[in-house]
Amino acid sequence: MGNPTAAMLVIGDEILSGRTRDANMHHLARELTKQGIDLREVRVVSDDADAIEQAVRALSAAHDHVFTSGGIGPTHDDITAENVARAFDVPIDVRDDARAVLQAHYDRQGIELNAARLRMARIPEGASLIDNPISAAPGFTLANVHVMAGVPAIFEAMVASVLPTLTGGAPVLSQSISIFRGEGDIAGPLSDLAARYPDLSFGSYPFQRDGAFGSNVVVRGQDGGRLDAAMAELNAMFPE
Amino acid sequence: MGNPTAAMLVIGDEILSGRTRDANMHHLARELTKQGIDLREVRVVSDDADAIEQAVRALSAAHDHVFTSGGIGPTHDDITAENVARAFDVPIDVRDDARAVLQAHYDRQGIELNAARLRMARIPEGASLIDNPISAAPGFTLANVHVMAGVPAIFEAMVASVLPTLTGGAPVLSQSISIFRGEGDIAGPLSDLAARYPDLSFGSYPFQRDGAFGSNVVVRGQDGGRLDAAMAELNAMFPE
Repeated sequence: MGNPTAAMLVIGDEILSGRTRDANMHHLARELTKQGIDLREVRVVSDDADAIEQAVRALSAAHDHVFTSGGIGPTHDDITAENVARAFDVPIDVRDDARAVLQAHYDRQGIELNAARLRMARIPEGASLIDNPISAAPGFTLANVHVMAGVPAIFEAMVASVLPTLTGGAPVLSQSISIFRGEGDIAGPLSDLAARYPDLSFGSYPFQRDGAFGSNVVVRGQDGGRLDAAMAELNAMFPE
Repeated sequence: MGNPTAAMLVIGDEILSGRTRDANMHHLARELTKQGIDLREVRVVSDDADAIEQAVRALSAAHDHVFTSGGIGPTHDDITAENVARAFDVPIDVRDDARAVLQAHYDRQGIELNAARLRMARIPEGASLIDNPISAAPGFTLANVHVMAGVPAIFEAMVASVLPTLTGGAPVLSQSISIFRGEGDIAGPLSDLAARYPDLSFGSYPFQRDGAFGSNVVVRGQDGGRLDAAMAELNAMFPE
């Protein structure tokens, strides 16, 4: 639809082992949709240097924006920052502005800024910082890659500070209708309708409710008038 | 760890638009972990022919098993089967065994097996069927790719029928400890410990509970004795 495109990269063994259920993908998907940025692909990889580097390279080349989640804490398994740097062949080191943010945060709490915590001040050359209002340790934006924390509250705060800086597209509008008939009944007419409205996207999602089968049909597009017209046809086809 | 590797491919615009929250990834991750199959990567792509084909090719070449979810229903946006076939350059058509399964199912309900429903009997040449005890329309296995439904109850039933046919690895054991100290405090000692137990994996996951910061440390590996030894050291380092 001509909107900017985005990909997300979720980094973390805990998601792939099933220990933790990812919550950030759903949040980001909703926020991007609101802003008219088209999330095209999500990848989840483990805490593995080559897997992170290769995914960052591939997604960064293919999309306008990449959002990563996870792996920027102080422990040995937090290896996102250095591998994003590797993907762009830039050096990474403790940077004064990031160190100052951490120093102020830990001073307020009377906690030592030790070597492990200082790891969180390592920022690739040329990156700009993403504010972390919750636990101070910043994310960063390098080229078109926005590197953010995995803890949902922090991820969401970082998304809230990054998104307003990006140029969105025309918001995608959507309308939906619940049809208490199986997908097999509505598939034919729906396919004909979709062919006559190539500028809209038609999704059909089966459900089972109170023992009855039905389908939620969701129509999405950027032109409200066309959307209304397609919905009027749908309502006429499947009156309930 | 020498175990078989796997990837998952989630197919569906509704996940990427944020309309639906994916539930299948978490389920599959847990089931594979139990069976000693190492889930290395997950991708989520839209209902786009080229995106599906390319992801299937890439993941099938890189892993022992690929599990897909979504896009095998009767509507025009269900395009998984033909694009899995394209990825392997094999023809796809309505197959007698799949048609018979659907015919019996719809006959029992007095519903017509119309053209849309018959789409669900299209099976790539050389594939074997995956049983669907809930709504009959089968999944299939082509080469190392297991193609399953997106509706969670059906996906889970198909996983339950596929997994026992696969050779798993040694189950991965895990033990964990909650340490009521910030990750920055435990990172140094934990990194030293991880270096001395290269056969185990150590993950650290921060939490905030009742206003206190802490870290869950999860140790995973295949040798119960080594796991016990590492946990004993962890308990001695961080007595609470």
